[in-house]
Amino acid sequence: MNQTCTVNYIDHVGVAVRNLESAFVFFEDVFGLQPGEVKELPDQGVRAALLKVGQTRLELLEPLGLETPVGRFLERRGEGLHHLALNVSDVSQSLEAAKARGLEVIDQTPREGLSGLIAFIHPRSAHGILTELVQTV
Amino acid sequence: MNQTCTVNYIDHVGVAVRNLESAFVFFEDVFGLQPGEVKELPDQGVRAALLKVGQTRLELLEPLGLETPVGRFLERRGEGLHHLALNVSDVSQSLEAAKARGLEVIDQTPREGLSGLIAFIHPRSAHGILTELVQTV
Repeated sequence: MNQTCTVNYIDHVGVAVRNLESAFVFFEDVFGLQPGEVKELPDQGVRAALLKVGQTRLELLEPLGLETPVGRFLERRGEGLHHLALNVSDVSQSLEAAKARGLEVIDQTPREGLSGLIAFIHPRSAHGILTELVQTV
Repeated sequence: MNQTCTVNYIDHVGVAVRNLESAFVFFEDVFGLQPGEVKELPDQGVRAALLKVGQTRLELLEPLGLETPVGRFLERRGEGLHHLALNVSDVSQSLEAAKARGLEVIDQTPREGLSGLIAFIHPRSAHGILTELVQTV
């Protein structure tokens, strides 16, 4: 078994915001970044959109309610950097490699996300970084 | 005057860690990422190293003491995502554009950083993201 989750590139950087549309105005106005389509992801409790920046993207996340993970994040920490998504070639293999190393995973098996097949690793196991593994499909 | 800081790509994502060497082991062991040279930046109160990931990098930051910005960040929030660095073609122009838009800047003029000429924008003005503008030199 390949014991390393070989990372290809940073797929995206997740950012928690209170309101997508006001964040769009900021990122376009100040940095010239344009938002992609807004998608609602009820299982993650967010409305989300990707903003292309070179090879990678910012993923803006607006919570669908206070009692969602991003809603609780905003309550606790306010807006800001939320997670780091690493593109891997095979998310199942990378997830198994992470588990084999004793990392605490949030998803036992990959699931569909905004950017492809995804699985989250708990920040407790990754130097405080909520880490998403992403396989483009 | 160009009123937009046109962003080329994500220069790096800053990560606050308690100890560089133990973080190196984690990122290499789990994700196959190798650290560059460790540099001490006394004016920023950190030891830092870059880990290449595709077009961009992770910048690991270990505080030189408790009473440094990264030391206080660790005390308040623990390890994790610390700042987002955006590569721009002309950092002076981008900084002036940010100021012209009323953004609160930490650096009134660019200074030398690990990755080139840099200037920080306060998270209060940037949806909670401590934002670094970087011009490669």
